[in-house]
Amino acid sequence: MEKRKLETCFSPALFEADCHTDSIVVIIDVLRASSAICNAFANGAASIIPVAEIEEAKMYKSKGYLVAAERDGFILDFADFGNSPFNFTKEKVKGKTIVYSTTNGTSLINLTRAAYMTVIGSFLNIGALTEWLIKQDRNVLLVCAGWKNRFNLEDTVCAGAIAKILMESNVFGTICDSTLASIDLWILASPDLHGYIDKSAQRSRLRDKNLDDCIEFCLTPDFTDKIPVMKNGVLVSV
Amino acid sequence: MEKRKLETCFSPALFEADCHTDSIVVIIDVLRASSAICNAFANGAASIIPVAEIEEAKMYKSKGYLVAAERDGFILDFADFGNSPFNFTKEKVKGKTIVYSTTNGTSLINLTRAAYMTVIGSFLNIGALTEWLIKQDRNVLLVCAGWKNRFNLEDTVCAGAIAKILMESNVFGTICDSTLASIDLWILASPDLHGYIDKSAQRSRLRDKNLDDCIEFCLTPDFTDKIPVMKNGVLVSV
Repeated sequence: MEKRKLETCFSPALFEADCHTDSIVVIIDVLRASSAICNAFANGAASIIPVAEIEEAKMYKSKGYLVAAERDGFILDFADFGNSPFNFTKEKVKGKTIVYSTTNGTSLINLTRAAYMTVIGSFLNIGALTEWLIKQDRNVLLVCAGWKNRFNLEDTVCAGAIAKILMESNVFGTICDSTLASIDLWILASPDLHGYIDKSAQRSRLRDKNLDDCIEFCLTPDFTDKIPVMKNGVLVSV
Repeated sequence: MEKRKLETCFSPALFEADCHTDSIVVIIDVLRASSAICNAFANGAASIIPVAEIEEAKMYKSKGYLVAAERDGFILDFADFGNSPFNFTKEKVKGKTIVYSTTNGTSLINLTRAAYMTVIGSFLNIGALTEWLIKQDRNVLLVCAGWKNRFNLEDTVCAGAIAKILMESNVFGTICDSTLASIDLWILASPDLHGYIDKSAQRSRLRDKNLDDCIEFCLTPDFTDKIPVMKNGVLVSV
């Protein structure tokens, strides 16, 4: 049986749209968008509308939507809250549609247009996500959100953790150096994941802004079995 | 004393020109351009003119220059030879100016315009190069050539090997996740570098074309003390 292709892309800037029109694209932004989105669905959110521009988020706010919006880790003044997963509590989000805009948003939203399907991956949903990916009859591309198009460690080791499970299923094959490197880095990081992520650049950026309280939570495996999937421009849970 | 900045970029597509106008940029294309260029200078080449376009290489050929030119590992019909380091023998290159055009060429030549200085790095000149970089009073950016803008293992572990030496000199500091990852991958790869590179995508591509005879040579540390430096669009040796 021919194996399905598994590939990894370390930055949205390296995404090759033409190569992945038939693939499921997994977007990984561990600190903190992917984790926040997974937690929102874990807490019963009905759907999430990702928007690229601040003006668009503002327009939704004026229509009465709950808006989560930040730039560089800072909450925008008109928004209900920012990007910390801890904001997406059951009390706030259950049954609601949330409008969501982040620093990395624009380039990631563009990816969803080119691919067969886009889903959100994090440590929080890694078990359910990988089990689901194995069952689909599709090639998979893991896209690390990075930070302003730069490579980052936390998304890479999460991609490696996902890739390792997919490769062990034996239905995927890879000749992609990024996938091999991410698996190696995950194996290196996994005995002390917190310690490993502690040296990352984003960890320092969040610490400088006192936004690092959620890191331990974001590195928790299998907190939820929700898999956020993009459908017609809106994230819903499968 | 403030430390100099060390950063790493895993693909020319991730190069941020504005950030590095004052930096020394080290271009790393282990299989095979960097290694071929280092070997050419080791064998006494006077200078190398890198050209992006095939037509430009052809024009130089018609003027009597020695031309090394390939695309995707295949020698162009009008060229004297291709990209294997073994082509750049003392008999052929001593005292000569060589015109050089490769698949990855275009994007790399563009980098040289933006940076303070561009030099060529490989395992072959790693000792001399790192010693020289430590003596310069400049920030350093390591740029992995990759393959058609994709991340690759062999350039990354070479960047990691260079970065480890620079960091140990204590005059450099880094908050760059790519640098940290490359050092980790180098530490992982170094006990059996050939075995590690054996799993890389470029290794398979070269093997498929019977071009893999030079890999062992390209992974040899300290074969030469030549450091190719770009000056006015031409590579010369310091």
